[in-house]
Parts: sequence; C-alpha cells; structure tokens
Amino acid sequence: MSDTQPPRAVAAVLFDGFELLDVFGPLELFGVLHDQFSISLIGPAAGAVRSARGPAAVAEAAYEDAPDPDIVLVPGGIGTRALVGDRSFLGWLARWAGQAPVVASVCTGSAVLASAGLLDGYRATSNKRAFAWVRGTGPEVEWVAQARWVEDRDRWTSSGVAAGMDMTLALIARLHSEAVASMVADRTELEWHRDADWDPFAVLNGLVDT
Amino acid sequence: MSDTQPPRAVAAVLFDGFELLDVFGPLELFGVLHDQFSISLIGPAAGAVRSARGPAAVAEAAYEDAPDPDIVLVPGGIGTRALVGDRSFLGWLARWAGQAPVVASVCTGSAVLASAGLLDGYRATSNKRAFAWVRGTGPEVEWVAQARWVEDRDRWTSSGVAAGMDMTLALIARLHSEAVASMVADRTELEWHRDADWDPFAVLNGLVDT
Repeated sequence: MSDTQPPRAVAAVLFDGFELLDVFGPLELFGVLHDQFSISLIGPAAGAVRSARGPAAVAEAAYEDAPDPDIVLVPGGIGTRALVGDRSFLGWLARWAGQAPVVASVCTGSAVLASAGLLDGYRATSNKRAFAWVRGTGPEVEWVAQARWVEDRDRWTSSGVAAGMDMTLALIARLHSEAVASMVADRTELEWHRDADWDPFAVLNGLVDT
Repeated sequence: MSDTQPPRAVAAVLFDGFELLDVFGPLELFGVLHDQFSISLIGPAAGAVRSARGPAAVAEAAYEDAPDPDIVLVPGGIGTRALVGDRSFLGWLARWAGQAPVVASVCTGSAVLASAGLLDGYRATSNKRAFAWVRGTGPEVEWVAQARWVEDRDRWTSSGVAAGMDMTLALIARLHSEAVASMVADRTELEWHRDADWDPFAVLNGLVDT
C-alpha cells in the first residue's frame, strides 16, 4: 500500500457512558500511524462527552455534522443500554456508518451496530459478560461466542474492552501489512494476540465448554 | 482492606501532547473499582487538553487548583520533551505530588518525575525506545532497563504505553489483593502480565543481551 495515499479517516462515536479503553486503546494504535490514519471523535454535540468511568473526552463534531468516515469505531460501555433503544440515533448511525468501507465495534458496541441493523447477516462477537444481552439485540446476526474478534467482510467486532486493541492491530495488518501492525505493537509495548480464536474469557464466563 | 474506606483519589496529570493509552489504560482499570478509586484529570487549565494522537480530554481542574491526591499518575508522550525543561511546572509537581502516598508514571512520564527530583534515590524504568533520553533526565535515579514496571516504595514506574496497565493491576493488587486485580483484568478481558520482569521490549530495543 502506497504511503502517498491520503490518510484514512477514523471516526470514533462517543456517547454518554462510553467505555474509555474501548475508544482510546484502538485510537492509540491508529494514532501511531499518523500518516496513514486521521482520527476524530464525534458525539451528540461538539464538546465534552462523559465516559462510563468519569473522565470526559472532546467530540470535535456532532453526529449530524460528521464527515463521511473510512473507518467507524463504536465503543461499548454502560451507555449502550440506552442507545439500543434510541431510534433517532440508530437511524443516523445506519445511514452514516452504512456507507463506510469499514465498520468496527469494541465490546458492547456490537449491540449498537446490531440494533442499527448494521450486522444483519454478519458474523460478530462482543463482551463475554454481556453476551446474552447483546445476542438479544441482533436476532439476524450470527453471534460467535468464542472469539477475540470477528472479521466478516467490512464488519469488525471485538470482544470486551482490551480486545479492541488486538482487533485494531489485525485491521491495520489487513489494510497495510503484518509488519506494520507488529511495528505498532512494538512501539506501544503491547503484546499482540494475533489469533482471533484466542479467547479465554469465553471459557471464564461459561459461554463455551473447556 | 475494608470496603468502607473512602475511595482513593487518583489524579492523572494531563499536558499538551500526552499519550492517550498511558492515561486511559490505567484509568479504565481503576475505574472498574469505582467504589475504591475516584478519578480526576488535571491540566494546565481546566478544559480541553490535546493528546499526542490528536483527541483531547477534559481536565476538571488546573494544576494549581488540584486537590491533594492519593495516587498521582503521570503519563508519557511527546509533550514530556518540553515538560522536563519547564521549571515552573516541575516545581509545582514536586510540591503537589511529593506528599502523595503513591506516585506513578507510565512510559516517558518517568522522565518528568525524574526531572522534578521525585525519583532521586529510587529504582525506576521507562519506555524502551526512549530509554537513553530518559536516563539523562535523572542522574540520581537507578534506572532499570529490563522491567515491565518497577515498584520501589511509594514510586511506581512502568515501561512504555501498554505497560501502564500491567503496573496498574499490580498496584491494585498491592492496595487491595491479587484476587481483586484479577477480577479487574477479567472484566476488561485483559491478559495481565503479573511478572514485573517480563519485558521483551528491552531485548527488542537492544537494552539488554538476549
């Protein structure tokens, strides 16, 4: 892939009660490759958006004003419980994210994608403690209980919280190369789980037999 | 440790060009234990502080107005290059953090602590790609090249970026228990490196012989 391409626009969708690491783990990794990816945060309105853990981040644009993204990142967090019933938000997300080349989620972000219809007919995964709830949000989704992440065509969904970083490195490897993704992991001193089937947390939470 | 104690106040020190994951990895983990830790972000002024990767977080208070912390967290990032020469900032940090029960850093945050004199006579570590520079900021520090993190009395310093999460879990284990820290790792689907001597990145960066 040529380095002279314009950077891909990565847009993280913030909402009240988003999970911090779901957003900032992946963005840290994309951010290392600042010539390849440009990052933006969007929210209900431009300005501060409070996370599930207290700290707030700054949305640069409101949902309705967000430019077309190349990569959509939807995090999880307690705020997803309200979002899956917010028809106005889900309608916007389906329109805005539906035309993006890559739509990705971390943790219970896949419940939001599913509720917007964006995972219908796709394989997907999610947080392992909230799996039963997430499954209920997407009857037309083929939910995969044991997976660190699932790649199915233009949809990428990861397991809970920290798993988003492994998925992001796999996505970087797909868009660039394994060597580039390894370089990002080395720079951030992150031990990358390269195997999408590595998922001890599915076992821990009783979703699969040992 | 009794659950009836008031939460420990964790204050993360933001500055222009802080590294995202250095802050939000540890805060995610402290944040799971919201009855045990209260989190705040502080910055040069209350309001938005821009990270090294672009996205901004919201400081709730200016440095000079920050309440006394129980745990200080100083991240790394490109912004540390300016901070180690900022005598006004370093003077404030030495006074404010110097009386805290725990002072912790992630990545090149240890160069900031060292420049404030907060690591003199302590063992400490840092980012493995920036190690030579960091070493130069603290001639009175016993720098440890191969370590995921170093705990020396009331000072905790981690290696680069992702290492901050392993250090934070070790700190939670020290303040509470190994079981509590394991629970936090499981909830965030994080594979915790429990061994402070595990550090393949020191080898990768030629700091130690294989």
